[in-house]
Amino acid sequence: MKSSTTTIEVTAAERYAFLDITEDLQRAIKDSGVTDGAAIAFCAHTTCALLINEWEDGAMADFRRRMTEMVPHEGVYYAHDDFEVRTQNMHEDERANGHAHVKSMLLSATSHAIPVVAGAPAFGTWQRLIFLEMDEPKDRTVTFHVFGD
Amino acid sequence: MKSSTTTIEVTAAERYAFLDITEDLQRAIKDSGVTDGAAIAFCAHTTCALLINEWEDGAMADFRRRMTEMVPHEGVYYAHDDFEVRTQNMHEDERANGHAHVKSMLLSATSHAIPVVAGAPAFGTWQRLIFLEMDEPKDRTVTFHVFGD
Amino acid sequence: MKSSTTTIEVTAAERYAFLDITEDLQRAIKDSGVTDGAAIAFCAHTTCALLINEWEDGAMADFRRRMTEMVPHEGVYYAHDDFEVRTQNMHEDERANGHAHVKSMLLSATSHAIPVVAGAPAFGTWQRLIFLEMDEPKDRTVTFHVFGD
Repeated sequence: MKSSTTTIEVTAAERYAFLDITEDLQRAIKDSGVTDGAAIAFCAHTTCALLINEWEDGAMADFRRRMTEMVPHEGVYYAHDDFEVRTQNMHEDERANGHAHVKSMLLSATSHAIPVVAGAPAFGTWQRLIFLEMDEPKDRTVTFHVFGD
Repeated sequence: MKSSTTTIEVTAAERYAFLDITEDLQRAIKDSGVTDGAAIAFCAHTTCALLINEWEDGAMADFRRRMTEMVPHEGVYYAHDDFEVRTQNMHEDERANGHAHVKSMLLSATSHAIPVVAGAPAFGTWQRLIFLEMDEPKDRTVTFHVFGD
Repeated sequence: MKSSTTTIEVTAAERYAFLDITEDLQRAIKDSGVTDGAAIAFCAHTTCALLINEWEDGAMADFRRRMTEMVPHEGVYYAHDDFEVRTQNMHEDERANGHAHVKSMLLSATSHAIPVVAGAPAFGTWQRLIFLEMDEPKDRTVTFHVFGD
């Protein structure tokens, strides 16, 4: 039984950018030496997400459009952004990102558990591991924990 | 390789109450003796959820408001609550909670897989493990499975 | 420490059909010989989902109705289905399934991590593992990775 935990840093170019991090997952698996087991992908943030879906610009644009219609980042009141009222967790670079917290809770896409077969994620033909930034861009950490034989 | 499975009981004060169960997860990890590995958090119910997000009253209120707008618990027909028609799984304390089943399936937040590093969940600064009751309050079980070295 | 990975094939009768695959999960656990550990259920596709909820026709119909209202498969433009514009990943049997990609990303229900206790999934009374087809039916693969003692 082997296991290893690695982290990568990702930074999106802009809000709502998607980043294909499948190769980072593949590399974490290769480096662990695990051929049969599983991998956990975990996003250590509260305003971005990890998706498993097809890397096709149209599909990602469709999702972004529907998502931002459902949870707009403008024109809606967010108590999280009401700095006159709010008292908890206020810090220096506090930004108006209440919409991104709501999106993040709605998606519930902080972690995925992925079988590993023959030294690679057991993905279907079109599956890719995709990081989605929903806040203003900043440095983000994604953690991979790989375990197995 | 060590592993342990523990359960906690949680009871919310009211429908849509949030409970911070991060310390319960931390304790389950400490008690397992695992310093490097992973933890699974699992909610053994069909009308509540486990969220990983910031513990800030405004953000949680924002999410609750958007969620209940998207899937209202009143003013909408739910076949699950149509006891004249329904035949499956009827039991003595059957309640009108069709809305909470829909919310639960939409969130898909029954389980999370979380890397464990240095004897603690590899959470980012603002991440907390949060139990969300979406039904009328009752006793609920959350299971933690921790494994690693 | 034991572990095993198995796959099943599932084919829904029609778009939006639900299939109860709890017994397949139970069998994968039994066959692995694991009595205490965990199981990962993983759907190797980008237009279907794995839900954990109650197997009750009304609740599933309620969810399907709300889901298709939120992300309709007709009457809405999907860039993924705009074959005049799209260039990526075009293949022979390309179908208009942009709606199902959006649903899949919104649900984020590709994988679940489930504790195993006494040789069975640690499900609550009403929990079932449910496959949901959101595209036109075709053969689908679900992978179970079971590990523990």
